[in-house]
Amino acid sequence: MRALVLSDQLRYTDHPLPTLAEGEALLRVLKAGVCNTDLELIKGYMGFKGVLGHEFVGVLEDWMPSRWVEPRAGVEPGARVVGEINCVACDSPSRTWFARAQDAGRTTVGIFQHDGAFAEYVRLPIANLHKVPDGVSDEEAVFVEPLAAACQILEQVHLKPTDKVSVVGDGKLGLLCAQVIATTGCNLTAWGKHPNKLNILARRGIRTNLVSQWDSSRTADVVIECTGSEGGFETSRQMLRPRGILVQKSTYAGIPQANLTMLVVDEQTLIGSRCGPFEAALRLLEKKQVEVLSLIHARYGLKDGVEALQKAQERGVLKVLLDIA
Amino acid sequence: MRALVLSDQLRYTDHPLPTLAEGEALLRVLKAGVCNTDLELIKGYMGFKGVLGHEFVGVLEDWMPSRWVEPRAGVEPGARVVGEINCVACDSPSRTWFARAQDAGRTTVGIFQHDGAFAEYVRLPIANLHKVPDGVSDEEAVFVEPLAAACQILEQVHLKPTDKVSVVGDGKLGLLCAQVIATTGCNLTAWGKHPNKLNILARRGIRTNLVSQWDSSRTADVVIECTGSEGGFETSRQMLRPRGILVQKSTYAGIPQANLTMLVVDEQTLIGSRCGPFEAALRLLEKKQVEVLSLIHARYGLKDGVEALQKAQERGVLKVLLDIA
Repeated sequence: MRALVLSDQLRYTDHPLPTLAEGEALLRVLKAGVCNTDLELIKGYMGFKGVLGHEFVGVLEDWMPSRWVEPRAGVEPGARVVGEINCVACDSPSRTWFARAQDAGRTTVGIFQHDGAFAEYVRLPIANLHKVPDGVSDEEAVFVEPLAAACQILEQVHLKPTDKVSVVGDGKLGLLCAQVIATTGCNLTAWGKHPNKLNILARRGIRTNLVSQWDSSRTADVVIECTGSEGGFETSRQMLRPRGILVQKSTYAGIPQANLTMLVVDEQTLIGSRCGPFEAALRLLEKKQVEVLSLIHARYGLKDGVEALQKAQERGVLKVLLDIA
Repeated sequence: MRALVLSDQLRYTDHPLPTLAEGEALLRVLKAGVCNTDLELIKGYMGFKGVLGHEFVGVLEDWMPSRWVEPRAGVEPGARVVGEINCVACDSPSRTWFARAQDAGRTTVGIFQHDGAFAEYVRLPIANLHKVPDGVSDEEAVFVEPLAAACQILEQVHLKPTDKVSVVGDGKLGLLCAQVIATTGCNLTAWGKHPNKLNILARRGIRTNLVSQWDSSRTADVVIECTGSEGGFETSRQMLRPRGILVQKSTYAGIPQANLTMLVVDEQTLIGSRCGPFEAALRLLEKKQVEVLSLIHARYGLKDGVEALQKAQERGVLKVLLDIA
């Protein structure tokens, strides 16, 4: 099959068709999305080699059922599906929190020891698959993975209607997080540096502001850090009130400096937040509670994938889609 | 009065007797303890100038009662008292979490804009005072402030009987934290670099181990970071299981590097933890549930205070006491 493979550099090339183990499915990829993590991986994050791509929608072409795993409703050959990206073998003794640890045998699609979806086909555990409802288009379904990551914030923190919440960063993930948090009805402000990106939220009635307009008040009960930069982490921490909660979504290729002393002095809590619940993300899309299509900036075929990932690195570019089948 | 005053350097010198405002009390200091924070302040932390000292026991000599504040039971002239160190004016509109913010007018005794207790007398809000029970000696009472900080861990995190908990760091605060956590009956190990310090815990039946003996397993549900070093932070994070909780007690004079990316990948929570409940600490001392006297390494008179603080900086030295009256 054809695929975008990362070795010493990213190449569009031939790659072996995945072979299935018990409890796994083969998906024909329809569309895939480029994430900032893909760009970090190209720079060396995680030392990953293989097929990139962890945001995707596909058709279930083939599977090897297992007595260990019951597929979710509607997951069967021919179904249009999305897939969670953290994988453990279907007969693993533990599918609980411990299975989330990379040193406990977990692999991550397109990120860690598991080929991804910038390819004609991708292999996933059947347990990871969710059927896409008819009311959700292929383009929307590509956003399920990052939208689930945004939903994870609400799994980890109880946002109360009276909470003052700041989302910092107006990149792809920040725009999704702000929309998800807006569903709670809390006192939300989305902060960024790009008026055109913030306008996507303002058009949906979400209060936005430029970081340069911040009045230095430390009054947010909860801050969601989506900037991906060391400076953005410090700004986020400074916006937070004493005893507030900072939810960190950003990962970094290097090891940043962080003012942990002031975290102690101000008795703040920092919560690392990563992947999230696909079912919740699919519900939000089906009920039109979030809008993702306005985040699409450009589309490329798989054969132009190297160019697509270069495009995604340009300043101001939001989601780049790959139309694969 | 005589006092240890920090300006360009630390000096034993004359200093004006504190004058009281409404709602404040004057304490004649009996004994005080040297904390690592004092050593950091001498190096420039917080830019503090004035009388050092925030661990102390004294006798309430004089006060200016206020209609705003009811003193706690037994707090009256002649009583032996200890005092919480975070101060807000007695008529402040907010004595809730917001009053804990330095930018909301909070001062901190011997740390931030408030003269401390390495002196013959110290001034405190009446609301901050707690009577010391008869069964608690002056020497023990000096430990109430850091012991309360150890108790704060249990205020912030629910430690379950089945939790695997690691306390990392065998300095003064680490030894107090380990003893407090041992009261919960959880699966505790105290980690350090000094067999003689760890022995203080081992004699009380607490499991101890040298950090050099750590087998790299990432299995702790909760880790308490008391090392005061950047390397200790990273070791603590690595001991923690995915989705575990890291309670940070250490503050640093500089801004450390911290692997926030792995905090996100492993979905861990970092909780900054500082001062704690004095009543709980006094109960533990009264009921002999913790033992503090074995932490005392040396005693000095106030006039030899500069030497006392030099002694406290030596490797391997635990608590240095000042006998003031």
